[in-house]
Amino acid sequence: MNIHTIFMITPISGIASIIVAIYLYFHVKSQNAGTDKMKDISAAIREGAVAYLKRQYMTLAVFSAIVAVLIAVFLDYNQAIAYIIGSICSALAGFLGMDIALHANVRTAQAARKGLKKAFSIGFYGGAVMGLAVVGLALIGVSVLYYVYYDPSNVSYAPNIILGFSFGASSIALFAKAGGGIYTKTADIGADLVGKVEMNIPEDDPRNPAVIADNVGDNVGDVAGMGADLYDSYVAGVLAAMIIGGLTLGVTGVILPLLIKALGIFASIIGLLFVRVKGSPGSALNRGTYITCTIFAVFAFLLIYYLGIYYPEIEMNLFYATLTGLIVGIIIGLTSDYYTSIDRTPARKTAESSKTGVAINILTGFSYGSISIVPPLLGIAIATIIAFQLAGIFGIAMSAVGIMATAAMIVSADAYGPIVDNAKGIAEQSGLGEEVIARADKLDAAGNTAKAITKGFAISSAGLTVIALLVAYAEIVGIETINFMDPFVMAGTIIGISIPPFLSALMILGVGKNAFRMIEEVRRQFKQIPGLMEGKAQPDYARCVDIATKGALKELILPSVLTIATPLAVGFILGKNALGGFLAGSILSGMVFAFLMSNAGGLWDNAKKYIEDGKLGGKGSDAHKAAVAGDTVGDPFKDTAGPSINTLLVVMSLTASMFAELIALHALIG
Amino acid sequence: MNIHTIFMITPISGIASIIVAIYLYFHVKSQNAGTDKMKDISAAIREGAVAYLKRQYMTLAVFSAIVAVLIAVFLDYNQAIAYIIGSICSALAGFLGMDIALHANVRTAQAARKGLKKAFSIGFYGGAVMGLAVVGLALIGVSVLYYVYYDPSNVSYAPNIILGFSFGASSIALFAKAGGGIYTKTADIGADLVGKVEMNIPEDDPRNPAVIADNVGDNVGDVAGMGADLYDSYVAGVLAAMIIGGLTLGVTGVILPLLIKALGIFASIIGLLFVRVKGSPGSALNRGTYITCTIFAVFAFLLIYYLGIYYPEIEMNLFYATLTGLIVGIIIGLTSDYYTSIDRTPARKTAESSKTGVAINILTGFSYGSISIVPPLLGIAIATIIAFQLAGIFGIAMSAVGIMATAAMIVSADAYGPIVDNAKGIAEQSGLGEEVIARADKLDAAGNTAKAITKGFAISSAGLTVIALLVAYAEIVGIETINFMDPFVMAGTIIGISIPPFLSALMILGVGKNAFRMIEEVRRQFKQIPGLMEGKAQPDYARCVDIATKGALKELILPSVLTIATPLAVGFILGKNALGGFLAGSILSGMVFAFLMSNAGGLWDNAKKYIEDGKLGGKGSDAHKAAVAGDTVGDPFKDTAGPSINTLLVVMSLTASMFAELIALHALIG
Repeated sequence: MNIHTIFMITPISGIASIIVAIYLYFHVKSQNAGTDKMKDISAAIREGAVAYLKRQYMTLAVFSAIVAVLIAVFLDYNQAIAYIIGSICSALAGFLGMDIALHANVRTAQAARKGLKKAFSIGFYGGAVMGLAVVGLALIGVSVLYYVYYDPSNVSYAPNIILGFSFGASSIALFAKAGGGIYTKTADIGADLVGKVEMNIPEDDPRNPAVIADNVGDNVGDVAGMGADLYDSYVAGVLAAMIIGGLTLGVTGVILPLLIKALGIFASIIGLLFVRVKGSPGSALNRGTYITCTIFAVFAFLLIYYLGIYYPEIEMNLFYATLTGLIVGIIIGLTSDYYTSIDRTPARKTAESSKTGVAINILTGFSYGSISIVPPLLGIAIATIIAFQLAGIFGIAMSAVGIMATAAMIVSADAYGPIVDNAKGIAEQSGLGEEVIARADKLDAAGNTAKAITKGFAISSAGLTVIALLVAYAEIVGIETINFMDPFVMAGTIIGISIPPFLSALMILGVGKNAFRMIEEVRRQFKQIPGLMEGKAQPDYARCVDIATKGALKELILPSVLTIATPLAVGFILGKNALGGFLAGSILSGMVFAFLMSNAGGLWDNAKKYIEDGKLGGKGSDAHKAAVAGDTVGDPFKDTAGPSINTLLVVMSLTASMFAELIALHALIG
Repeated sequence: MNIHTIFMITPISGIASIIVAIYLYFHVKSQNAGTDKMKDISAAIREGAVAYLKRQYMTLAVFSAIVAVLIAVFLDYNQAIAYIIGSICSALAGFLGMDIALHANVRTAQAARKGLKKAFSIGFYGGAVMGLAVVGLALIGVSVLYYVYYDPSNVSYAPNIILGFSFGASSIALFAKAGGGIYTKTADIGADLVGKVEMNIPEDDPRNPAVIADNVGDNVGDVAGMGADLYDSYVAGVLAAMIIGGLTLGVTGVILPLLIKALGIFASIIGLLFVRVKGSPGSALNRGTYITCTIFAVFAFLLIYYLGIYYPEIEMNLFYATLTGLIVGIIIGLTSDYYTSIDRTPARKTAESSKTGVAINILTGFSYGSISIVPPLLGIAIATIIAFQLAGIFGIAMSAVGIMATAAMIVSADAYGPIVDNAKGIAEQSGLGEEVIARADKLDAAGNTAKAITKGFAISSAGLTVIALLVAYAEIVGIETINFMDPFVMAGTIIGISIPPFLSALMILGVGKNAFRMIEEVRRQFKQIPGLMEGKAQPDYARCVDIATKGALKELILPSVLTIATPLAVGFILGKNALGGFLAGSILSGMVFAFLMSNAGGLWDNAKKYIEDGKLGGKGSDAHKAAVAGDTVGDPFKDTAGPSINTLLVVMSLTASMFAELIALHALIG
């Protein structure tokens, strides 16, 4: 059978994904949206979130237009078109995910008034809309571009155009992630430090002026940002495999990654049906993930087995390489879980250390976070060797594809988290009572448990994807080694390792600066609005939303622009070899800081929750205060800087690949 | 002239250095040691310090004996002898430095009763004894081994034996640094958290049960640990250059680095004469450093110029490569200074952020610390390229030699710091009055200013030295590339980057655990000893010293042993290429964490001092409390983990080089 006939599975899977997403969207929207008060709160959150995204997208439109012109002039007209489409799709994925999340949160809260089961399914289906939209939009976009730009005389041409698409998706994702991350933590820290710590009112209390901004933040950061981010790494992963596959196996190598992704979508749609609460919500989510992975593995086996009959270049080892990624992803997830889970030693020791004050809490959490780097890196190292031994460099790329093939399911479980978190907030602000809040808490806890495994997938996939992108860069630019003994490579690598901590720091400082403004404003309102503490007067929510919005947009510019500018500077000054080293260096230190920040952040959060569960003196104790400070340090680690690093690495790698030929021709020295 | 006649400059410089050191030793010792109370305190510190070192050295003797036997059996009998000599010299350098520091501190305090000038010179000459002893012992040791093992048929034989010497020095330094670092911060945190924060008594107050342990810690950590550490990096730097020089230029390449080091000693001895207080003590120290560097540059120029006449392989470019190191070292020092100095934006912004509480203080300090990574790494990258362009790989090694050639002067200025710090403590505990304490404070502040530049030298030298050691490893094991695109190298690199943060974390957790025990004990004494707070009863100092001692020895074992075991595991399992990647990876992430931790720690310290100077509410304000917590986080960063990383990298590189041939023959896979 012609490979391009088989290829049609890809757009079909994308369309199927979108159809299911639309069905679920209307299913969720048809649910009861609750009391008037709930609708009011929900509307306020929506208003703030949409206002933020609108301003963000307008800023990005200007930026994207400039970049598109530059690409059209200096590189390739068609790549510029692909770039614009990629940007739009990425923004769309983020926006759609947020839109449904804003419908789902209030409906989950309403359903939680009756029981756990219904509430869970609304939250999860809300997440599934985003999961399906992300992968559907990605595969449709890539398929269409592939179809339009396929050139039988040069199988690498279409992937090269799709590079523009991926670059567009990633650069938007970077802004969305950085901006959303700064927004959400600005609001969170502002709300917590004044509300919880200084005024002693509970989280999500409607008297807190920053509470709406906090809820908005969850949506623009955790939902819209994450949607754009996963969209970008999904596309980058498949693209890297297409480029390497094309160079090693020819046209079947270009198409195989797409087919594997398509099977992942079908497996995820089947898996979604199994996500129902039987025991705890947490195990329902995990069951869905495991079933999806199993079905996907069977599908992938059958595909590669039968393709191998007609196309001898498709060897069974490619299946095993894909499977390696999947298994390593699960193992990494489980080990990461150990370092953050509330039931394990690290979180407990960190909680205990809070008794000696905040400094020891910080040191303990930071140390366990640093130790938690070892298992995932060991996992990635082992996966790299096994996948390479099985199927060469294409094997490494396929293992990255394997992990994220089930992205629809993974994103669904991930997006469930902020939806139910928001539902909890709405339940609290609308005074739905203890029982409902307790249910919402249960739903929320399930989100945190599921997160460990999905995070493992995301981390290992990102690691392997950027390695594959580095290989793709080397192939494009025509260098066979990235030899650390070459002084230019060495210099590039040394510069590269400094970039991820540098850019993370800029983002964290951005959060700090903006949080400072927010704290001043919240304090001011508590002081100047009479009757606010007594619940007799309304705080000025809009003012806080405005501070978060303006600040986030202001602070995201520098780190985002530097992400694109730095690899270009290194490449055009020190040459293509130094740029290879630069990418390697930034990938290496990027992985270290991504794991460190995500895990330490999660750990501090759970250490605080452990104490809030009544241990070690419980809420209000000195240990609790120390743990709250630890959690506040961890917040921008895990929600701003940590998750931005993956996107940052992808953007740097893609920038290098996009400009590879120009750099090879025009570098100053090196 | 025969090169081996010229070589004699080296042992002569070593002997000259020791003679001057002995002279200064007796000069310092002949000074007035103060009142009986001062002598008592001094005796108590000495007792604790000697007890600790005794136990540490006994533990290390067992370890060294085992390693020596392993080396004799598996590698080379002569290398084992060199290993033992290296271990003893390293321990001796640490011990001598500490011994004179313990004489100098109390005499500096006594002299401060009369004036600044005399006190300064006692403190500085105390430091100079250590500086001169370190370089003297190093060059004599290396010269003797070179003389004994020189083999005209194989110029690489002697350097290979000296590898054992360097390995011995480094492994002892690692234990001394890690153990001393854990000790000093255990005591410091214990004393501060209970004394300053909970009981509101001043620093170094004699009522604090941990105050003697704290003073002991300064000596075993900052003095003895630093002595061993600088000894080890001085030897490793010259060794790497000898190995590479031998392979690229033959016998003159082996000897040139030694000659350069010898000139550095003479320049330092001359420079010492210029260190007298005219204006402030800080500028006296800096003047000494600058004059020494200038004289050294002239000497090095003349040497290489005249050698070049007789030995054409010695090109002037080698001088410029050496000079590059020197200049980059100074520049890095000045930029590092910016990120930690009390007068600059980062420390001030961190201080200001303390107003919003401890979490934002931590985030701000951590962020500036992360940003501070960029200038030194950029400096090292530029130095690498320039030195390589000038004189190839040997050029990189020579630039590392260039930086640390003036080590005698640098170590003197560095060791001055803890001596005057201790003098201040003694002045406070013996109640010498406000005026004397103010003078001691001035002396102490000068130490901190000088530290920035010496730290710049240490950092850049360590970075370039480990890069040179990596090159040496590659030469020894016979690999021409460390190609990141090779999956084994990639896997090795990925594992390597996880090791420095992992081992740092183990050390910090060790501090945390031990500090916990110390805090409990100090709290217990304040509760259970009647009249302690009123100054009517003596605290039980010995008990605190004992806790710090036992804990430090217990906690140093795991990280130190892993430092040696991990490269061996990677090498014997994944092979020599993977081990090359492993070293590269650990060097890269090691540099990042070393800069981050040292600078963030210094920054938090100065942010606290800024507030203590009366700004932002001054002592006792909420901002001050937040800044104290930040400083407590920074303490193990800058005094335990950060400085241990350099040693750790050197030990890992030397381990790899020592076992290179065995690994090449016996690796499992790869």
